[in-house]
Amino acid sequence: MTAFTAYCACDAHAPLVPRLFERRELRADDVAIAIHYCGVCHSDAHQIHNDWNNTVYPCVPGHEIVGRVTAVGPEVTRYKVGDRVAVGCLVDSCQQCAPCADGQEQHCQQGPTATYNGKDRITGETTYGGYAERIVVREKFVLRVPDALDPRYAAPLLCAGITVWTPMRQHGVGKGSKVAVIGLGGLGHLGVKLAVALGAEVTVITTSASKAEDARTLGAHHVLLSTDAKAMLAAMNGFDFILDTIPTRHNVNPYLMLLGRQGAMVVVGAIELLEPVHGALLMRNNRSLAGSLIGGIADTQELLDFCAEHQVLPRCEMIAMPEINTAITRMLANDVKYRFVIDMAK
Amino acid sequence: MTAFTAYCACDAHAPLVPRLFERRELRADDVAIAIHYCGVCHSDAHQIHNDWNNTVYPCVPGHEIVGRVTAVGPEVTRYKVGDRVAVGCLVDSCQQCAPCADGQEQHCQQGPTATYNGKDRITGETTYGGYAERIVVREKFVLRVPDALDPRYAAPLLCAGITVWTPMRQHGVGKGSKVAVIGLGGLGHLGVKLAVALGAEVTVITTSASKAEDARTLGAHHVLLSTDAKAMLAAMNGFDFILDTIPTRHNVNPYLMLLGRQGAMVVVGAIELLEPVHGALLMRNNRSLAGSLIGGIADTQELLDFCAEHQVLPRCEMIAMPEINTAITRMLANDVKYRFVIDMAK
Repeated sequence: MTAFTAYCACDAHAPLVPRLFERRELRADDVAIAIHYCGVCHSDAHQIHNDWNNTVYPCVPGHEIVGRVTAVGPEVTRYKVGDRVAVGCLVDSCQQCAPCADGQEQHCQQGPTATYNGKDRITGETTYGGYAERIVVREKFVLRVPDALDPRYAAPLLCAGITVWTPMRQHGVGKGSKVAVIGLGGLGHLGVKLAVALGAEVTVITTSASKAEDARTLGAHHVLLSTDAKAMLAAMNGFDFILDTIPTRHNVNPYLMLLGRQGAMVVVGAIELLEPVHGALLMRNNRSLAGSLIGGIADTQELLDFCAEHQVLPRCEMIAMPEINTAITRMLANDVKYRFVIDMAK
Repeated sequence: MTAFTAYCACDAHAPLVPRLFERRELRADDVAIAIHYCGVCHSDAHQIHNDWNNTVYPCVPGHEIVGRVTAVGPEVTRYKVGDRVAVGCLVDSCQQCAPCADGQEQHCQQGPTATYNGKDRITGETTYGGYAERIVVREKFVLRVPDALDPRYAAPLLCAGITVWTPMRQHGVGKGSKVAVIGLGGLGHLGVKLAVALGAEVTVITTSASKAEDARTLGAHHVLLSTDAKAMLAAMNGFDFILDTIPTRHNVNPYLMLLGRQGAMVVVGAIELLEPVHGALLMRNNRSLAGSLIGGIADTQELLDFCAEHQVLPRCEMIAMPEINTAITRMLANDVKYRFVIDMAK
């Protein structure tokens, strides 16, 4: 056993505090990782505060993990000590069902094992995440960070990135696609960058004129103010795909109107009830309102490779581990461009 | 000018009454049709009663029209006097925009011309529908009724049929698809028959155990009672495609749960606000909630040809024109299996 420090929540109302944990003994197919960077995800705040009524305390958040291999179990074949690796939202799944066979472990019929606040499939113990010095993960769920990808920027790809990548791939976003992105936060800013890199014509939809300049520096070709009724009307029927990253309950109808024939709007942020959808807006143009949940391991590797090749890098604000409580408060106030990343060496 | 009798609504509260109308002079590309059969659609009742606040009185309903050609304009090439023909929900469109070019006239960017309560693109006069002895329609919007298709049964295909056909084709329903149909009315019963004919494994979802036998005689392989919580749980994640024909505001969440990965549920009946959808249900399995609006002219012809080849025949109750008011009252009380069809010769 090796002791290491992690920042954990001990109840829903207290700040995160450092605490010593024991690293689990390596299983035959385990990879031990020294964590160098960990992104701070909006869902971390939900879990810390028990917003979903399922948090097990102590809770060590963090599922955007980048580091180096420090040890491997005897059956590990793809990684060796020193390799630059990453871990996302999942650390295990049944590996037996159709979704697992298709590389969609996030939809595992038995439920995948979450990187933190999950339940280890062998011991039943709670899993602990990346706000920590170390983690041990089954080889199958460890990703390779390409040499060409700056490891500081790889972290936000592991959740924010794959969350927006999967629906764009599923719905065939590419050259000639007309794409809109609603919301310019951790997810939205990556949606813009990835859609542009895929060759789409990209519009950012925002309530705030002040974000227009930001949107353009991210590569967006157009900005549409949702408060400008005339502009919204002029944009009606104009998009093939809309990525909706709004993280709270909201009215999707004004956006649905913007979809052209067989267009799809995909909700990736709001894990709650939406305002009532009007059936006629779905029927007009045969539109669809869809959802998408993170992504599978193979797709996440594809994303890391794509971002290395096209140098798609998230915009991050680097923090030291002890700054985490301030960072979470700022994130909840939308005061970050666009993702906090913990640098364990700071 | 030729006078003919049609049944029309003169205000939202009065019954339909017979009245004499004048047939319009034939334009160069017009086809004059003697109407033999006309289906009674749920939307006819909405229009008669001005539920959508857009009815122009007098209103002659009816957009499931089957008859024979009695005269043609000089430029008509595809039809001749005596041909068995049909007219559905549309009688014109701009023929210039991308949807029209793609054969999706229902999504015409200038708005298609509805068969009744529409506005003629040349004269601006109100269009009158199929509760009548005659109609004149532009050749492009006239369909051919194949010899192998009993004309009595062709009528409900023109709106109910194409409404369920289009989304099944768009979403690739075929051999091996697991399809559920919610609601067993005019639309739903055709959804079952067409999905079966396309080779799908079909389940009818209903609140009423008494409909189970009916569902099976229509060809459904399974029946799922939505009131049976245990059965609903067992069916979770099981369907590729769900056709939702419920015509009023309802809660789609219990049905969304039944969709498997990338599964789509398509709303074709409820032209109003739905109960709030839960974002997490869309994200799980990357599901989508879509809509679909009738269908284009080429697709409607494809449907008529398919039904002739596979002998997919709606179940109809034939009525005489003077029985129309009783029929509408019974339709609104769900007292019809499954579509009233007016037989003009009765």
